[in-house]
Amino acid sequence: MPVQISSRVPALRNAATRLRIDSVRSTSEAASGHPTSCCSAADIVAALFFAEMRYDPRDPKNPDNDRFVLSKGHAAPILYAAWAEAGIISRDDILNLRKLDSDLEGHPTPRLPWVDVATGSLGQGICAAVGIALNARRIGSEYRTYALLGDGETAEGSVWEAAHVGAHASLDNLCGITDVNALGQAGPTQWQHDMDAYAARWRAFGWHPIVVDGHDMPAILDALDEARRTKGRPTMILARTMKGKGISFIEGKNGWHGKPLKKGEEMQRALDELEKQFVKEEEPAPAPEPPRSKSRPLPPPAAADKPSYKLGDTIATREAYGDAIAKLGARDSRVVALDADVKNSTFSDKFEQRVGPDRFVQSYIAEQVMIGAAMGLAARGAIPFPSTFAAFLSRAYDFVRMAAISNLNIKMAGSHAGVSIGEDGPSQMALEDLAIMRAQPNIAVLYPCDAVSTERLVDQMALHQGPMYMRTSRPKTPVIYGPDETFEIGGLKVLRESADDTATVIGAGITLFEALKAYDQLKAKGISVRVIDLYSLQPIDAATLVRCAKATKGRMITVEDHYAAGGIGDAVAGAVAPAGFAVQRLAVREIPRSGKPDELVDHYGISARHIVQAVQG
Amino acid sequence: MPVQISSRVPALRNAATRLRIDSVRSTSEAASGHPTSCCSAADIVAALFFAEMRYDPRDPKNPDNDRFVLSKGHAAPILYAAWAEAGIISRDDILNLRKLDSDLEGHPTPRLPWVDVATGSLGQGICAAVGIALNARRIGSEYRTYALLGDGETAEGSVWEAAHVGAHASLDNLCGITDVNALGQAGPTQWQHDMDAYAARWRAFGWHPIVVDGHDMPAILDALDEARRTKGRPTMILARTMKGKGISFIEGKNGWHGKPLKKGEEMQRALDELEKQFVKEEEPAPAPEPPRSKSRPLPPPAAADKPSYKLGDTIATREAYGDAIAKLGARDSRVVALDADVKNSTFSDKFEQRVGPDRFVQSYIAEQVMIGAAMGLAARGAIPFPSTFAAFLSRAYDFVRMAAISNLNIKMAGSHAGVSIGEDGPSQMALEDLAIMRAQPNIAVLYPCDAVSTERLVDQMALHQGPMYMRTSRPKTPVIYGPDETFEIGGLKVLRESADDTATVIGAGITLFEALKAYDQLKAKGISVRVIDLYSLQPIDAATLVRCAKATKGRMITVEDHYAAGGIGDAVAGAVAPAGFAVQRLAVREIPRSGKPDELVDHYGISARHIVQAVQG
Repeated sequence: MPVQISSRVPALRNAATRLRIDSVRSTSEAASGHPTSCCSAADIVAALFFAEMRYDPRDPKNPDNDRFVLSKGHAAPILYAAWAEAGIISRDDILNLRKLDSDLEGHPTPRLPWVDVATGSLGQGICAAVGIALNARRIGSEYRTYALLGDGETAEGSVWEAAHVGAHASLDNLCGITDVNALGQAGPTQWQHDMDAYAARWRAFGWHPIVVDGHDMPAILDALDEARRTKGRPTMILARTMKGKGISFIEGKNGWHGKPLKKGEEMQRALDELEKQFVKEEEPAPAPEPPRSKSRPLPPPAAADKPSYKLGDTIATREAYGDAIAKLGARDSRVVALDADVKNSTFSDKFEQRVGPDRFVQSYIAEQVMIGAAMGLAARGAIPFPSTFAAFLSRAYDFVRMAAISNLNIKMAGSHAGVSIGEDGPSQMALEDLAIMRAQPNIAVLYPCDAVSTERLVDQMALHQGPMYMRTSRPKTPVIYGPDETFEIGGLKVLRESADDTATVIGAGITLFEALKAYDQLKAKGISVRVIDLYSLQPIDAATLVRCAKATKGRMITVEDHYAAGGIGDAVAGAVAPAGFAVQRLAVREIPRSGKPDELVDHYGISARHIVQAVQG
Repeated sequence: MPVQISSRVPALRNAATRLRIDSVRSTSEAASGHPTSCCSAADIVAALFFAEMRYDPRDPKNPDNDRFVLSKGHAAPILYAAWAEAGIISRDDILNLRKLDSDLEGHPTPRLPWVDVATGSLGQGICAAVGIALNARRIGSEYRTYALLGDGETAEGSVWEAAHVGAHASLDNLCGITDVNALGQAGPTQWQHDMDAYAARWRAFGWHPIVVDGHDMPAILDALDEARRTKGRPTMILARTMKGKGISFIEGKNGWHGKPLKKGEEMQRALDELEKQFVKEEEPAPAPEPPRSKSRPLPPPAAADKPSYKLGDTIATREAYGDAIAKLGARDSRVVALDADVKNSTFSDKFEQRVGPDRFVQSYIAEQVMIGAAMGLAARGAIPFPSTFAAFLSRAYDFVRMAAISNLNIKMAGSHAGVSIGEDGPSQMALEDLAIMRAQPNIAVLYPCDAVSTERLVDQMALHQGPMYMRTSRPKTPVIYGPDETFEIGGLKVLRESADDTATVIGAGITLFEALKAYDQLKAKGISVRVIDLYSLQPIDAATLVRCAKATKGRMITVEDHYAAGGIGDAVAGAVAPAGFAVQRLAVREIPRSGKPDELVDHYGISARHIVQAVQG
């Protein structure tokens, strides 16, 4: 092997030089981008793509291909250059960098078949890589996962969440490489070229650190070989590099972050210097070797059976969620559950108990890597269900944002929504989760009120592609739907309806029951209202809402255990606005306090009493 | 000193026992809460409050009091018990724990004068403590800052962000204590009682780690003494403890997280055991010593002068923001700017250059600690302006949520909003920032379109109490307001108005200029529209919007460089809904791509052309 490697070195050096040249050319043509961040990584990328990684360049979807995640997403041009070098795209294509009609965007996205997750928000790629490495175990594949980080991005806490989960799961199929070029955007990075400081951190977090000169090709190849032979823990290769390496007048200089070379004389001067760096033994980059294994075939998913709840049973939707994912996981090997140390509150422990620990990922109290790992799993064909308290999904919101940009098949669930959790107080109450999830245009947002709709909607989440969110509640609620009732993403249920309805009352989750109570109280007074269970906020059944608005003289009243902005009220208002209708909203309008659930629901204006007042008002 | 300390030990042990007793009593009375998480920390809390910390128990607002942050917020009952022991609240009060009419909530909030920041979302308190420690330097005080963490919460990446900033800033006035009780909510913590693993991590991050038995009072006192004498870096005391310490039948047992002892026999059995632990030398807890210094008086803020921009100058609002905070910082010593390695893009580097490095905090690429430190600074009288790309504030959204719960005086700014940033692509575009900020009912949300309104609104942010957010833009825009124009939080400007207006067009930021272009194009066709600059989305001037809606036959058209949910459209719709008006919205409705700014603004349907179509529609 060493002989074989050393014979490849001249060709790999030349490949690295071509990657630098193409990174300069594409960014100069685009007049924006990050050539210097590409140049520091060129030798590493050449070693990975043309010596270390095993993949079929004609088959991006091969499940056994080694995977590469560009955690330092701003170095996208060198990734595109590597694909050109591998014959995956044409060398001319890279000059379309950053154009509206090209998929070669400023930062990589999964519009490109070789990209698993969108990067460009730093510190996320390594979390996704953890999920991709975990997926290899799920499908029984020997593929390896490589993630290239910038040194600056290791200031992100999420990197250390990935470190702790990667070590805890003993992911020796995972290899990170930190391109320590010592320069951030605005100046030197915190630890600059203090390689010992980096090594100490990774070692303390249970990884195998290897320090190398990131421009010494044999040393890089040796480090990758050592990583591959390291068992029981992941490896982090810490590569000392120079930003802008290979171009004398920008190499190691501050003030060149995110700055292309000006087309013309400046660019040409750089290209002339780089051309001179080709070593004599000119030859093409070695072709990658094929995948090292064939993953085992997995059983096809079995069909869902009916919910077994009886009308009138009382069970919290969070518990029904736990039961539902356990049933789903038992019949579909793609399903993986992820927890951040609240499995006995979200009831995802039911999944762990029934399906077993192999497809249950425990991130401990680290929500960012929980969502990040789910993104990586989803990218490789798993159907991940990460769950925690809905309030704490806000901790991972930048990951949610990037999952939406990636359009990944990730199924998030948040429990303990709203003031109805009671005594724990506002820090534990999600009152903005619907708003932040709905803010992403492609995230489906579901909010079941009972156990049957919860189970049916969990099944729907697994059936349909794309990012989704389910909100569950802490209090027990009665089962109101029979076992044959069906639910769809984008649907709603009109539960009370008559020709005399004077208003349409729209609730979901626990407020649906407040609406039903209000219905009874109003009925007793001879007032008829329509009641809707809006279990799908996004997409939303605008046609039915408009029909009800018309039928009830334009009177629409929403009631939600959520702040006023961005939740049910805004979702309904947005849906009926084109028909000219406005919406009256009952919602939580201030920071709440601790108290008993019923007391808080009433105190913050979202109980049956307030609905009755609003209808009569 | 050692003699003095050892003489206090029996009294401190008794204080710890009383803290345990009161934690059991209050949680049993509330029938919810976390007595076991209190019991593990009782000796540490007793040592801190009655031997180590220097403060005036009658004066919570004394700027020189040592500070305590309960990062493991679920141990709130022991904090309240410590206050009772110190005579700050009455011992009877603690039995009101978690009641709606009591400020003794399930997790501490700053409704209580001794609490700086709300905790309960784990891993945040230590970030706030960094800010509180930084504040001591700002005001020239020798107060020390202590933060009590749980072991489980150190899985949160934000803890390691705090670690790196604390070490980089050489905060030897900061002392963390980790209560390593080895049990999380759902089971054992990741590293359980592997004290070396903890110590290696903190050492690698540049802290001084001290491992102690967390139930050995002299050892705790020695560790705190060692921390106080450690110069040049912060200390982390790693205290090996037992969850439920002191109560034999729950001590160290899994399954007792967040579970009170049942009132009656079970509680009494625990209390009987605890009562027996009083040492013979019964005496009251030592009174705390007074603050060790008096901070220096700071100069009062000078008055703002007028903006110096001229009508028609073109300058990006992000750059005007940098100029504005620099001017503000120069005249008000309370103002601190914080950056996450993008100061040359947000232009907060102007503050650093003008005001100097003392009030400029560099967190590197770590947005959570940037916001967390700002929270701590705000809690101690500073006016912090943390800024980054608006997209990356989503990384710290759980901190934003807790800042809102804390109602802190934190002034956030996000640049590079919307598709108008162009080529960098969706990962760098904030298209949900207005939604996530508006979701919090007490965050003011500002969005200026030109340099004058930016500067005026920055001044307003500093003048008014409470959490606020300003969105700035990347492209240059012309100055449209004269230097005498005034702006207020909750205001708007009607820029075009006539008796013949057929619609009200509402924009902000870069879309305001699209609205003005559309106005001109429509005018040329003989169509008159009203144009509003909605520079304050929250609070919002509902009265003027309703007046305009009435004047323009109910035709309201919003246009925003933001996704459709939660932004300008929803803000306006919510404001005019009570008057019965609906709103037509132009917004970005899909995940965008890289491209040129103008091209993207048009492609995603928010350019003048689309406004003209909507008006004529």
